[in-house]
Amino acid sequence: MEVTIVPVGTESPSVSRYVADIHRVLESAIEPVKVQLTPMSTILEGTLEDLFAVVRRMHEVPFEKGAMRVNTSIRIDERRDKESTMESKLASVREKLQE
Amino acid sequence: MEVTIVPVGTESPSVSRYVADIHRVLESAIEPVKVQLTPMSTILEGTLEDLFAVVRRMHEVPFEKGAMRVNTSIRIDERRDKESTMESKLASVREKLQE
Amino acid sequence: MEVTIVPVGTESPSVSRYVADIHRVLESAIEPVKVQLTPMSTILEGTLEDLFAVVRRMHEVPFEKGAMRVNTSIRIDERRDKESTMESKLASVREKLQE
Amino acid sequence: MEVTIVPVGTESPSVSRYVADIHRVLESAIEPVKVQLTPMSTILEGTLEDLFAVVRRMHEVPFEKGAMRVNTSIRIDERRDKESTMESKLASVREKLQE
Repeated sequence: MEVTIVPVGTESPSVSRYVADIHRVLESAIEPVKVQLTPMSTILEGTLEDLFAVVRRMHEVPFEKGAMRVNTSIRIDERRDKESTMESKLASVREKLQE
Repeated sequence: MEVTIVPVGTESPSVSRYVADIHRVLESAIEPVKVQLTPMSTILEGTLEDLFAVVRRMHEVPFEKGAMRVNTSIRIDERRDKESTMESKLASVREKLQE
Repeated sequence: MEVTIVPVGTESPSVSRYVADIHRVLESAIEPVKVQLTPMSTILEGTLEDLFAVVRRMHEVPFEKGAMRVNTSIRIDERRDKESTMESKLASVREKLQE
Repeated sequence: MEVTIVPVGTESPSVSRYVADIHRVLESAIEPVKVQLTPMSTILEGTLEDLFAVVRRMHEVPFEKGAMRVNTSIRIDERRDKESTMESKLASVREKLQE
């Protein structure tokens, strides 16, 4: 799952403060969720139930910091024919690149 | 909330069959959720808790119909300084267009 | 194609003023592009070349109005096995709903 | 800019073959574009003009490999008040995390 959270109507165009606070929520999560921060989003790996619980809390963070409007984008890529992890997906692309 | 669900690895490039099945799930939802189908997505209005419950079921539909991989995109636009509905958002743009 | 443009770091959480200005750009576009405004996005129909030219101008609007940061989301759904329009996509779903 | 390209109606749920082919297009690009592959997307850094030129070619790849329908998602995060790179964005978040 990939998540991007953007507060709207904050005074400054910088959002790194919010991203850092959201990251702290992830670090203290009790759910067994794997996290990778990219320059454009946060990528999460885990069961759909755990991921939705975590995203709900992430979406709250900017409101708690004073934002009045929050835009959250979530992209779920779920595969049920075989196990698929962040690592296995990248490894599969790298393998094809060497063919 | 805007939702787009795309089954991956189906034989046909047509996905309207899946969209129709997903729409049936929405029609039978007990949650008080407002629905608008657009050519690119489904737009839902309601409380975040109801919307997440509905999206979870929508995401299951292609798997139940045989798909092995599903890509679901969710965009949440939540505003807490004033009530904001599908209608009020469009009305507000139209108003500005007449200024 | 579906487009959503969000200015970041504006003082007010309201973005309808920007959406209206973007809509004016679309109204004066010389490209033969079909437009539908939804509560969550703008849906455009046309050739990929025309659409990209229009989106480039839409993305500039908030900067011209003073925004320092703009987040633009674009989703392209292109099908080459048969003609696919905004109307034909909705009609196809409705047809399946009546089966 | 973040790009995700999903072929629809391919027989297999695996898309790594397409991602690898798209990556080859990026490797041979003459535009000075910086690339980072993530498990959910490809992140590109460069001028908007170069990025759009590259994305147009990326979007063609699955069609050249036989796909009849392609869904391409593009997210642009452009900031004009100060230079913002993939590295500076991550560094800014890490800095806030240590405060």
